Amino acid sequence: MNAPITVPRGLKNVIVTDTEIGDVRGEEGFYHYRQYDATHLARTRTFEDVWHLMVFGDFPQTPDDFRRRVGGLRVIDGRTVDLLRSVVTPSTEPLAALRVALAALGVADRPLFDLPESERVDAALRAAAATPTIIAAAHRLARGLDVLDADPTADHVSDYLRMATGSAGDSDVLRTYLITTIDHGFNASTFAGRVVASTGSDMTSSVLGALGAFLGPLHGGAPGRALAALDDIGDPANTREWVRRRIESGEVIMGFGHAVYRTNDPRAELLKSVVVQRYDSPLVRQATTVEAEIEAAINELKPGRRLYANVEFYAGVLMSEVGLPPEMFTPTFATARVVGWTANILEQAAEGKIIRPVARYVGPEPVKAR
Amino acid sequence: MNAPITVPRGLKNVIVTDTEIGDVRGEEGFYHYRQYDATHLARTRTFEDVWHLMVFGDFPQTPDDFRRRVGGLRVIDGRTVDLLRSVVTPSTEPLAALRVALAALGVADRPLFDLPESERVDAALRAAAATPTIIAAAHRLARGLDVLDADPTADHVSDYLRMATGSAGDSDVLRTYLITTIDHGFNASTFAGRVVASTGSDMTSSVLGALGAFLGPLHGGAPGRALAALDDIGDPANTREWVRRRIESGEVIMGFGHAVYRTNDPRAELLKSVVVQRYDSPLVRQATTVEAEIEAAINELKPGRRLYANVEFYAGVLMSEVGLPPEMFTPTFATARVVGWTANILEQAAEGKIIRPVARYVGPEPVKAR
Repeated sequence: MNAPITVPRGLKNVIVTDTEIGDVRGEEGFYHYRQYDATHLARTRTFEDVWHLMVFGDFPQTPDDFRRRVGGLRVIDGRTVDLLRSVVTPSTEPLAALRVALAALGVADRPLFDLPESERVDAALRAAAATPTIIAAAHRLARGLDVLDADPTADHVSDYLRMATGSAGDSDVLRTYLITTIDHGFNASTFAGRVVASTGSDMTSSVLGALGAFLGPLHGGAPGRALAALDDIGDPANTREWVRRRIESGEVIMGFGHAVYRTNDPRAELLKSVVVQRYDSPLVRQATTVEAEIEAAINELKPGRRLYANVEFYAGVLMSEVGLPPEMFTPTFATARVVGWTANILEQAAEGKIIRPVARYVGPEPVKAR
Repeated sequence: MNAPITVPRGLKNVIVTDTEIGDVRGEEGFYHYRQYDATHLARTRTFEDVWHLMVFGDFPQTPDDFRRRVGGLRVIDGRTVDLLRSVVTPSTEPLAALRVALAALGVADRPLFDLPESERVDAALRAAAATPTIIAAAHRLARGLDVLDADPTADHVSDYLRMATGSAGDSDVLRTYLITTIDHGFNASTFAGRVVASTGSDMTSSVLGALGAFLGPLHGGAPGRALAALDDIGDPANTREWVRRRIESGEVIMGFGHAVYRTNDPRAELLKSVVVQRYDSPLVRQATTVEAEIEAAINELKPGRRLYANVEFYAGVLMSEVGLPPEMFTPTFATARVVGWTANILEQAAEGKIIRPVARYVGPEPVKAR
C-alpha cells in the first residue's frame, strides 16, 4: 500500500482528470468550449449547435436533424406531468421537482459502463432535453397555471421560454445567456457528476449528483442575488453608502468578483452589451449606473483592489428583461448547465477509472476487541 | 493563482479530508467505527446502537427512545407508496425506485448550511430510516405483492426483514451483516455523498449522490456475484477446474480478494462463523468447501499469492439463508450503508468547505475570437 498523499484542503488546485471539453483562462478573461471562444459561440450560434459541439465534439452536419432529435426528447409524457402534479406545492422549488422527475424518467436506466456509446449519448440528450420542460412545468404547477406542452418543432431556447412564461418573446437574448453558461471550467457540480459517473453508474444518477451539488449555497452562480442587491440599493445615488456599509461589515458584494477571473468576466461583458443594446429600461439604466458606482466606490474604499461585475450581475437583469421571475433564474441557469454536465459525464464514463481518494482518520485510537 | 498539483489518477491515496467516523487498517485485517472494533459491534450491539454511534459519536443513553425515534421515521405515508406504485414495474430495481421516493420525500429539503445541527440530524435519520421501508415496498410491488407497513415499535432490522420477506425470521443473523456493512473506510459512494454535501446542499441531494455512485459497477460490494459463482461451480469437486479456467482467462474470482485487506477480511470471518454456527445447510456446506478449494487452487496455481474470501462471499450466503432473494442483496446492503453515508454527510457539512479540484485541459489550443 502506498503512503497517503497530502494536498490542499478541498483538493484546491489538485488535478483530478484530463478534459477536452473546456477551460477557463482567468488571467486572460477568456474561456472556451472545445477550443471555441465561448462568448463568440454565444453571439453567433444556436443553442443546439453548441449542445452538439459539447456532446459530440463538433458542430452538427445537419443542424435541423439535431434540432428535431432534441425537440422530440423535450416532450415529456402525461405520467411525468401527473407525477409533478403530485409532488409540487406552491412552495416547491422547480429544481427539487426536477430531481423527482429525472429520477422517475430514469427508473430503468442502466449503468453507463454497460451501454454502447450511442446509448450513452441517447441518455445524455434525453436528460438534458427534458430538463427545461420539467422545470417550466414545475414552475407553472407551483403557481396554479396550466402546464404548456413542449413543441418538438420549435428551437430549444424559445420553446423553454414559452413553456415557462407563455411567450417565446426575446428568446434570442436568453439564448445568448444560456450558451455562455453551458459550462465554465471544472465547477463543483460538474465534478460531482463526474465522481458519480466514474463508478460506471447510470446517466440519471450522475446528473442527480451534479444537480445536488448545484443546489449547494457554496456552488455559486445564483443570478437572483445580484438583482436582489439592485432592489436593495434602489436609487443609484445610494450606491456609495451601500457599498461602504457592505465593506465595513465584511460582506460580499453580490454580482462582483470571481474566484478565477482577475480581469473582466467575459460573460458579464457580453451580457451587458446585449441588454444595453436591446433594452432602454429603468432596470438596465439602474444596473449600468450601479455597476459604475460600485467600481468607483471600491476604488475609493479599497484603493488598488479592482472588483469587476461577474456573470450573475447582468444575468439577473437579462432574465428579468426576457420575462422570467427571480425564482426561475437559478432553474433557468440549470437548463443550460445540464448540457455541460452530461458532456462531462460522457467524458468521465469513457475514461473508465474510478475517482476515489482517501480520508485521514483523526479520531481517538481504536481499540481491538480481539 | 497557484500552480495546479499533479497527483495519481483517480485521486488514489490522495487525502481529501479528515474524519472521525472510521478507518480500515488493511494490513491488520481490522476496521472500526469511531474507535470501536466494527465486527465486535456487530456481535454485541443492536443496529440502532451502532446507528446512534455513527451519527452522534456515542451510544444512546436511552436506547428505547432512539429506537422509537427511528421507528417512527421508518413509517412512510400512503402518498409515497402511491408514488412507488406509479413508477415500479416488474423489472424495476428497488434502488432505482428508492431514488424516486427519496427525491419526493425530500422535495422540501433545505440546504444543510441553512439548518441548525438538530435539523441536519433529523434529515439524516429520516433518510436512513425510510430507506429500508421504501426498498421493501418497491421489491414487493415489483413482484405484485401487498406492501407491508412499517411497525414503528419493532427493531429496525427485524422490521426490514419482515417488510421485505413477510417474516422477521432470523433477523439477528441479518443484523450482524448489516452492522458490519454500515461503513467501510472512505468508499466511493461515501466520497460522492461528501462531495455533494461539501457545497452545503441538502441531505436528499447528498444521499442521492452517494446512492448514485453506489449503483456503479466499479463501486464493488455486490454480494449477489459471489453467490452466482457458487451456482456456477455447482459441485465443489468442480472448483479446481473452475478456478483454473478463471485464472487462465484473466477473470476476477468473485468474492475473493480486496483492495485494502492483505490478510483475512474481518467481515468475511465474522459472517462465516455466524452462518456456520447457525445453518447446517447444503448452501453453507458448499460455501465452506468451495472457499477452501479456491484457496488451495490459488495456492497451487499462483504460488505465493494468497487470496482470501471477502465480505461478498459469505454476505450472499447469509442473506440467502435469512430468506432474501438475490435481487435484494445489494438493496439490503444499501439499507445499512445509508447510515454510514448520512453520518459522513453530516461530518462533511460541519466542515463547511467545498471539495473542488481542477481538470487539465488537453484538447487543441483554443482560438480567441476577439
